[in-house]
Amino acid sequence: MHNFVFHNPTKVLFGRDTIPAIGPETKAWGGKALLVYGQGSVKRNGVYEQVIASLREAGVEWIEHGGVCSNPLLSHVREGVRLAKANRVEAIVAVGGGSVVDAAKAVAAGAVVEHDVWKFFTGKKGVKATLPVTTVLTLAASGSEMNSGMVLTNDETREKFGFGHRLLFPKVSILDPETTFTVPPEHTTYGAVDAISHVLEFYLTASDPDSPVQDRLMEGLIENAMAACERCLIDPRDYNGRANLMWTATLALNGLTAAGLGRVGFPMHLIEHSLSALYNVPHGAGLAVVMLGWLRAHRQSLAERIAGLGRRIFRIAAQDSVAAADQTIACLQAWLQSVKAPITLEQLGIPVDDIPTIAANAKGLARIWRLQEYTPERIAAVLQLCR
Amino acid sequence: MHNFVFHNPTKVLFGRDTIPAIGPETKAWGGKALLVYGQGSVKRNGVYEQVIASLREAGVEWIEHGGVCSNPLLSHVREGVRLAKANRVEAIVAVGGGSVVDAAKAVAAGAVVEHDVWKFFTGKKGVKATLPVTTVLTLAASGSEMNSGMVLTNDETREKFGFGHRLLFPKVSILDPETTFTVPPEHTTYGAVDAISHVLEFYLTASDPDSPVQDRLMEGLIENAMAACERCLIDPRDYNGRANLMWTATLALNGLTAAGLGRVGFPMHLIEHSLSALYNVPHGAGLAVVMLGWLRAHRQSLAERIAGLGRRIFRIAAQDSVAAADQTIACLQAWLQSVKAPITLEQLGIPVDDIPTIAANAKGLARIWRLQEYTPERIAAVLQLCR
Repeated sequence: MHNFVFHNPTKVLFGRDTIPAIGPETKAWGGKALLVYGQGSVKRNGVYEQVIASLREAGVEWIEHGGVCSNPLLSHVREGVRLAKANRVEAIVAVGGGSVVDAAKAVAAGAVVEHDVWKFFTGKKGVKATLPVTTVLTLAASGSEMNSGMVLTNDETREKFGFGHRLLFPKVSILDPETTFTVPPEHTTYGAVDAISHVLEFYLTASDPDSPVQDRLMEGLIENAMAACERCLIDPRDYNGRANLMWTATLALNGLTAAGLGRVGFPMHLIEHSLSALYNVPHGAGLAVVMLGWLRAHRQSLAERIAGLGRRIFRIAAQDSVAAADQTIACLQAWLQSVKAPITLEQLGIPVDDIPTIAANAKGLARIWRLQEYTPERIAAVLQLCR
Repeated sequence: MHNFVFHNPTKVLFGRDTIPAIGPETKAWGGKALLVYGQGSVKRNGVYEQVIASLREAGVEWIEHGGVCSNPLLSHVREGVRLAKANRVEAIVAVGGGSVVDAAKAVAAGAVVEHDVWKFFTGKKGVKATLPVTTVLTLAASGSEMNSGMVLTNDETREKFGFGHRLLFPKVSILDPETTFTVPPEHTTYGAVDAISHVLEFYLTASDPDSPVQDRLMEGLIENAMAACERCLIDPRDYNGRANLMWTATLALNGLTAAGLGRVGFPMHLIEHSLSALYNVPHGAGLAVVMLGWLRAHRQSLAERIAGLGRRIFRIAAQDSVAAADQTIACLQAWLQSVKAPITLEQLGIPVDDIPTIAANAKGLARIWRLQEYTPERIAAVLQLCR
């Protein structure tokens, strides 16, 4: 095991009827907030009403900043920063899925500096302070509700970059599984795939794999994300199914899984970000496709590790590790198909002829994430296996 | 899954050469500290020297309060409170195992009130503030380094009571696995048993067992505590073995496992506390014995749950759940014997004739912990199965 620091200060309130806590929890950080939300699903499912009733009752004033889209855009965050500054808000309240939480974090960081917020993402500026963020989560997927990361797409340059800093942990996150009852099946699947990919990235890129405590944790999370996803697809109002998926997605990227693994990479995300940036495909859909291609590309070099995972979660018996790795990949593909995730670029509507363009797009992020071993050639080779 | 709040603010610094951080990390909370430690093992293994060098370099003054014994005593904590008050210390630094950390927490709570510290444990007073606690852990066992609990033995009344409050999370805990290289085999085993028991208590008393995400986490921790313990017994200087055991023990009782389980009990600890209080047996040794008796007492009422655990961690194939539960208990017993843990009261040196006395001793804690269903008769029945 490598040395690590684990310090996750986010307070999670989980369960039914927890949304009314957002007012008092936010008030503890500030009396004037920017309320960030997405395309309006929170208005249709009643979450918005609960949030503003709670803010009002707690005496929190708010300014609205709705309209965050999936793969949230820099231009929209800039507008949020402008609003936050103009109104001198003291806190940011995010109500939505990972995109909304990420946008809220970006506004929180951007609102306290004079320079453009994108400079954090390109590594030209470091975070030294942020406004406090509180969240009401409505989608089990990104883990942003309990971590220090955020991802943004620059709509001018078509770059989708991610960035993390310890000041970006939300102060409080409210996770009511009932808010996800109305998430449509495809987005339920994409959320589960996102969570699985978060675990898989670290599991397969750990520089020290002798951390069985972390392995058992990660295998359990993958197994559970799959099982919970299946339950939610059968019955979207299965409370425990939704609750298990939601908490699994949170634990999948809150720092716990990576503790002790040393340097870990995020190569599947690196490649997927280019798909989302160029074609605006849902993040989880893109990940399903990239995940399979990436695994195929590493079926030999990571045979032992992939086989070990398959033996645990798919009960694969093959002795030979490459054979067991291949069976693991086949099982994962079969599962993705069973939950109706796309498994090829074609199914995402992305022409194979575009592979060089996609690979070139990933170059900037590879540099920033220090994954320079992912040259355009290597990325193209992975994408060739996503067919 | 039940509603829950998860909020664990402890900052963990884990790994080699992390002890020199204790000075600056403590200085951030106060410039004058009470340094709490145990029977002197930290002086023999060089940890003490590293700690005071770091405190000195960071400009932290300290007053010493060594001599904490296992099953730490109220009288010694009272002396610590007196010292802390007389010297107006601003922080408590614990250097040792769970007993030392617990004693430090008790001093931290007692130093800011006028009344006797025992009143917290009997429920007569509530915690409203504490001094900040920082720790350097030297034993993988109790989990106290990253939780809000503490256990103390009243040496006048022979009551061993435990108590938790959110203000009792250490601010910073330093976990260097190398500090445990010199832990003797029997205490390595007792530590692993303690961690296993923490997980098992929640696993088997959860009021809502439909939390697969938590189940997989708990099963993984138990499996890993066993495997890591075996490694450490074979080679006490196996760094990754020690590291895995240490992080497992921390995760086993830091709030994660209990999230979503609803009301959970601590009945094995309830019974064991009386063994420790009356006979001063090592906590983990007492737990090994009580654990088996408690499982036997519940082989039918919790057959499904015990069998489910055994199917996961011991690969038990029996279809019938009582048969599978019995096999699970037999496997656990065999494992305890393999790591040289005691498995009977006799091996602890406790006469079976004392069972009524032990059962009567547990009455007070059963009331405070709201486990009144554990009548002296029921406890005696469990103890009869510890033979």
